[in-house]
Amino acid sequence: MQVKAEIITIGDEILIGQIVNTNAAWMGQQLTLAGVEVVRHTSIGDRHGEILEALATAVARAGVVLITGGLGPTRDDITKKALCDFFGTELLFHQPTFDQISERFLKRGIPMNRLNRDQAQVPAACTVLTNPLGTAPGMWFEKEGVIIISMPGVPFEMEAIMTQEVLPRLTAQNNTGAIWHRTVLTQGIPESVLAEKLEAWETTLPSHISLAYLPSPMAVRLRLTARGNDRERLRKEVNDQIEALQPLIGESIFGFDDDTLALAAGRLLLARGDTLAVAESCTGGYLSHLITQTPGCSAWYRGGVTAYANDLKTALLGVTPATLGQFGAVSHDTALEMATGVKNNLKADFAIATTGIAGPDGGSPEKPVGTVWIAVTGPTKFFCEKYVFGNDRERNILRTSQTALQLLRHLILEEDKRV
Amino acid sequence: MQVKAEIITIGDEILIGQIVNTNAAWMGQQLTLAGVEVVRHTSIGDRHGEILEALATAVARAGVVLITGGLGPTRDDITKKALCDFFGTELLFHQPTFDQISERFLKRGIPMNRLNRDQAQVPAACTVLTNPLGTAPGMWFEKEGVIIISMPGVPFEMEAIMTQEVLPRLTAQNNTGAIWHRTVLTQGIPESVLAEKLEAWETTLPSHISLAYLPSPMAVRLRLTARGNDRERLRKEVNDQIEALQPLIGESIFGFDDDTLALAAGRLLLARGDTLAVAESCTGGYLSHLITQTPGCSAWYRGGVTAYANDLKTALLGVTPATLGQFGAVSHDTALEMATGVKNNLKADFAIATTGIAGPDGGSPEKPVGTVWIAVTGPTKFFCEKYVFGNDRERNILRTSQTALQLLRHLILEEDKRV
Repeated sequence: MQVKAEIITIGDEILIGQIVNTNAAWMGQQLTLAGVEVVRHTSIGDRHGEILEALATAVARAGVVLITGGLGPTRDDITKKALCDFFGTELLFHQPTFDQISERFLKRGIPMNRLNRDQAQVPAACTVLTNPLGTAPGMWFEKEGVIIISMPGVPFEMEAIMTQEVLPRLTAQNNTGAIWHRTVLTQGIPESVLAEKLEAWETTLPSHISLAYLPSPMAVRLRLTARGNDRERLRKEVNDQIEALQPLIGESIFGFDDDTLALAAGRLLLARGDTLAVAESCTGGYLSHLITQTPGCSAWYRGGVTAYANDLKTALLGVTPATLGQFGAVSHDTALEMATGVKNNLKADFAIATTGIAGPDGGSPEKPVGTVWIAVTGPTKFFCEKYVFGNDRERNILRTSQTALQLLRHLILEEDKRV
Repeated sequence: MQVKAEIITIGDEILIGQIVNTNAAWMGQQLTLAGVEVVRHTSIGDRHGEILEALATAVARAGVVLITGGLGPTRDDITKKALCDFFGTELLFHQPTFDQISERFLKRGIPMNRLNRDQAQVPAACTVLTNPLGTAPGMWFEKEGVIIISMPGVPFEMEAIMTQEVLPRLTAQNNTGAIWHRTVLTQGIPESVLAEKLEAWETTLPSHISLAYLPSPMAVRLRLTARGNDRERLRKEVNDQIEALQPLIGESIFGFDDDTLALAAGRLLLARGDTLAVAESCTGGYLSHLITQTPGCSAWYRGGVTAYANDLKTALLGVTPATLGQFGAVSHDTALEMATGVKNNLKADFAIATTGIAGPDGGSPEKPVGTVWIAVTGPTKFFCEKYVFGNDRERNILRTSQTALQLLRHLILEEDKRV
């Protein structure tokens, strides 16, 4: 029987959407990998009554309750008081925590004040979890067989406490059931068509393996989840099911789990011993960022030029003033000259170029906001395609960059066929 | 009395952290701006019983319950069935929705299948909310004075239904209390020092205005929230309180609400009539992306070069082979030559350069992973600073880029003092 966990994230800034709740996602990932089944995320405000109510319902539902937020030095933070009331305990001065805070301040040459000193006060009923990266310690409570863990809301502090303290303790305490996830990443087939193609296969899945479709604008992901007792056996069963997918949709599978399109393209380049350069206008560096997020990309990525000003398209990329004058910066010819120019100037085997109108301004009836040209070029072939995306600047940048990587992958596969 | 809202996001992919819950954040923002008080976010799995239980507790707590997820064409989606059971109703074929879906498929030249046809089945008890960007419609229910709204989980589809259908209806139905938020963005003062400086001022805040500290690695944000009846009056009161902050921490305030460091630097450049160029190595295009996220940046941003390969640092930026040979790519001299080179080659007034070891590989005892040099240069001055961040590639890229923008802002303010 798998241990069930609930994640409670505290903070008005989450409720009003001022920050995106990346903490809950990160904890969900780590707990899942540790074989703990996450059954709920709850976000509530910095209010005493809400914290007590959320704690009470969570402990009735889950064997582990993880709380983040509300442990900073400032006065809007009331989690510690709520925890004291929930456990019928009181705050005590904790010397080792105080020493650790003092040392941190000493190292950074900043004087400590009363608010920092208060952070060494912890509920008497808890085991203190050292925070290696900050001043608010984590806290571990046990009550009627339920484990309750409280951590600060600053993401990298929470992540350090989880990694160094919480996950090892949970793994040691629980002799739990096993779980195995694997996600198949596909592109080029709409979700409903994919579902039809896979219908017969899905019907044959054993009952302990479940399938979920995770659509997104650029890809459809298929997540297989197996539950049982033997992790290694689950892993093999899931892999066998994925093997069975190959004859059905093999050509549209570009990777697994956290693979990215950039990684998929990079693997193909690496296999050829080829390199890549990019020339960006409307994507403004984001395409290069997607590529350089990939560890080890220096083996196949040369670099890029963001030619935001038009005269730089000529000076750095060799786009002719005649092309810019006749067709404009957002055109088939400009995109192709940008790609060819960056391939030559940066001495790469493949190149991508993007040029478009990201918005919110700059559109015209002929070329509305969202109009984008993408060119990809390789040793013997090229594609140059026009797209019309939407009105949202951020989404246009993202979709253009992802589409460019799709086109690149498609081009490399075409070049591969020539050999 | 403000209407309270609860957001329920459905999907195992949220619980296991495969996706970050941006939907809840976006809805939280929009509801808050519409004067609705968001009191809870709940995320649960794609399971019938959990959906019913979450709905039952939410309607007891809130006047509006918004649900996303579980409305796609594939068989893991069971929200619609759960809604039928909750409202004691059944699925009916909805001709206008079917016509709209058919039209979408016709336009895109894709054949429709049975799964798409099923998407036109909606619970008999609901009002259908048109989905202008997808095939799964939104649904509006009312039960015992509580409004329950169900929308698909694809972010841009949900956003379209919220904007075009949900928010106008909620605003029309509710004659609610007013709320006003404003967030003051500061940098350069640690949270606890800021809290001490503001303690006396905070004590004088009227009870209907609350203060929250929102720390992050690069900035401390102070959010003021005022609640009352007259939105315009609240706006004025909050602005008066922010005025009172100026003598206390004025020099560390760089913006408000969703302002970014790039926008703050851009405003300063625009006021001078000056331009910017960037040369990136370890940040790989992310710095340029942060800059070009800012609408209108073409007025002050020339462009950038990502010189990932060392020979491109020489070819495109003029870093001398002697400097690279003697000091290495991650060094004071290389950073400064990169900044000077990009400023000259891209004809800008200011320039930033980043070079470092983002990780996970490439570190040495002398220059461990996380070692970064940042240079900023202007018409008469420059800074060139070394930082040692951590082991995480993604965070190193992010912190280097944000720190570079801080340094740039600092340099522009110094250059301004000369005039």
